[in-house]
Amino acid sequence: MSTVGKPITCKAAVAWEAGKDLTIEEIEVAPPKAHEVRIQIHYTGVCHTDAYTLSGKDPEGAFPIVLGHEGAGIVESIGEGVESVKPGDHVVALYTPECRECKFCTSGKTNLCGKIRATQGKGVMPDGTSRFTCKGKSLLHFMGTSTFSQYTVVADISVVAVTDKAPMDRSCLLGCGITTGYGAAVITAGKDGVEKGSNVAVFGAGCVGLSVIQGCVKNGSSKIIVVDVNDKKEEWGKKFGATDFVNPTKLKEGETIQQRLIEMTDGGCDYTFDCTGNVHVMRSALEACHKGWGESVIIGVAAAGQEISTRPFQLVTGRVWKGCAFGGVKGRTQMGSLIDDYMTGKLKVDEFITHRQSLDKINQAFSDMKAGDCIRCVVTMKD
Amino acid sequence: MSTVGKPITCKAAVAWEAGKDLTIEEIEVAPPKAHEVRIQIHYTGVCHTDAYTLSGKDPEGAFPIVLGHEGAGIVESIGEGVESVKPGDHVVALYTPECRECKFCTSGKTNLCGKIRATQGKGVMPDGTSRFTCKGKSLLHFMGTSTFSQYTVVADISVVAVTDKAPMDRSCLLGCGITTGYGAAVITAGKDGVEKGSNVAVFGAGCVGLSVIQGCVKNGSSKIIVVDVNDKKEEWGKKFGATDFVNPTKLKEGETIQQRLIEMTDGGCDYTFDCTGNVHVMRSALEACHKGWGESVIIGVAAAGQEISTRPFQLVTGRVWKGCAFGGVKGRTQMGSLIDDYMTGKLKVDEFITHRQSLDKINQAFSDMKAGDCIRCVVTMKD
Repeated sequence: MSTVGKPITCKAAVAWEAGKDLTIEEIEVAPPKAHEVRIQIHYTGVCHTDAYTLSGKDPEGAFPIVLGHEGAGIVESIGEGVESVKPGDHVVALYTPECRECKFCTSGKTNLCGKIRATQGKGVMPDGTSRFTCKGKSLLHFMGTSTFSQYTVVADISVVAVTDKAPMDRSCLLGCGITTGYGAAVITAGKDGVEKGSNVAVFGAGCVGLSVIQGCVKNGSSKIIVVDVNDKKEEWGKKFGATDFVNPTKLKEGETIQQRLIEMTDGGCDYTFDCTGNVHVMRSALEACHKGWGESVIIGVAAAGQEISTRPFQLVTGRVWKGCAFGGVKGRTQMGSLIDDYMTGKLKVDEFITHRQSLDKINQAFSDMKAGDCIRCVVTMKD
Repeated sequence: MSTVGKPITCKAAVAWEAGKDLTIEEIEVAPPKAHEVRIQIHYTGVCHTDAYTLSGKDPEGAFPIVLGHEGAGIVESIGEGVESVKPGDHVVALYTPECRECKFCTSGKTNLCGKIRATQGKGVMPDGTSRFTCKGKSLLHFMGTSTFSQYTVVADISVVAVTDKAPMDRSCLLGCGITTGYGAAVITAGKDGVEKGSNVAVFGAGCVGLSVIQGCVKNGSSKIIVVDVNDKKEEWGKKFGATDFVNPTKLKEGETIQQRLIEMTDGGCDYTFDCTGNVHVMRSALEACHKGWGESVIIGVAAAGQEISTRPFQLVTGRVWKGCAFGGVKGRTQMGSLIDDYMTGKLKVDEFITHRQSLDKINQAFSDMKAGDCIRCVVTMKD
């Protein structure tokens, strides 16, 4: 029996309030309205951003909500006017949409589409309403994706069709962390990514940092230094192509990490990447850059209210401080080439999956993530 | 009688100690050693950097010293191995040298030559000694130029020959302020300077800020907003091509300058320039940039120990924070085209000269500079 045009009842992990575990509930997912797409989510990753919002530390976080933003699945049905995908398409959800019409999309300078920013930020669909109901209560959407539900509804600009040859338990990870890191290295840094022969330092070797390394390897960086407080990350970094490792808690007496990196690179790094979200690390990353041209890219998301600082002399003498969201990748236009890179072995994805859980055990996936040996935990959404 | 190879006795303004007026003294200027050039300085500008060092606030400032770094003159003699200039050449002194051999010069990414940085910073010639003596005491050099002397000695990489058709009382100003601002707009900002149609805000409309405006006009900016606490700068700005003026002390109740600029530009400026050296202004300049691509260039020099700060979200959402010294201009390679721009009327210089003084009255030139109606005071060095 076709579900098209009808509400679907399915399981979802609901965040009823801040600081509490998620609860597996039966929820009702309304059919997609015009320019909306209903997706059966097969797999979802669990990311620090989900945990941050769930913790209640995000001042913009609101409840009850269906979290999750790193998901892959199959289009179940589409609303009126949808042309970008069709039922049966294998898709990746995009928390950074791409409308191709707004001032941002047409600028050619950024991936930060502005079309549905306001409603996405409020946790509702572009028409201002929710498609999720549970126990008579409306649930909020998260980052325009809400992948912690077996079915979700997203705007048609918040989804991209990819080849059905890409296994969805892997492609889901391209919905956030891997793309964010890889894109930062091959798109955001420099004029067109880091250059061949460049010296690079990557602060924080989680999913994002390891993906930065992959982007640097692709572009031909000479020296790729991993900086992480966890010694186990040396092996992880090298597996992905890093050449060096420094544990910033084990420096010489009185030495700073920026001094060590400047010494290792004969003057400073051409590019550095913060993948930690720690504002003190962001400063070190900038100051470890080479005078005259070194560029530091902020990828990590800092806690609310925190600020970065440095002496302006650092910039006057030629260092550049920038950042990006989703790696600067335009999801609908560029996801295909990332999937290609994965399918042809140029982009490692499988290696990131250290843990797996079923939807019923999604709270365990959050615990897994906080353990030092976890890169990504993939949650299987289908029963 | 030729002076070649002999010491020259001439007048100079000597800074004997911090916080005191300069004293006009007879000093002895030794002949140039290998790869050095002795210049008869005809005209020099007086810049805030001279005043900053004289004040004693610069922790690296040392005394006694011959200040001055914005000078033009004629080569009197050259040391062994000098090929870039010859006696009789009209020249502009370069506090940012260009050796064309060091890692920085050959990088193609910066104008910050590293060849004589260490000795220049210590106030001596590349061989570690001074060419200036007064009353038996050795005087320090300043910024590799020391243009407050009728004769000075500089490294051959710290000077550029220009056409003798350019009046030296104007070309001296290309030794610092004008080039710094103009270069920031046409070289440092963006990939190759600000783009046609861009919206720009310039914080501080002194010599540097007004030169930024000229660079923006040259490159075809649409909206050029001057931000200055001095209402008289509205007329100055418009004379140089600015389209709008905002006095940040006269905003609406509760409005910030960044909010005003974002409103005036429908989302924020494509480029902003800090020409004040005030770290709070630097923050406003960054935050007035357009999300996704806006770039803020720090040109002003902050007082020692001061820091800039902002929320990292500003960068993660696509703004870029950078800076430059001497506008990013490579003095020996690019000064010629700036002089051409001046000679063909594309770059205003004469208009900057609001005051003139003789060397004997150089302390008055410092006072002039601090008055609100002064853009540049040119000091005539010849008796």
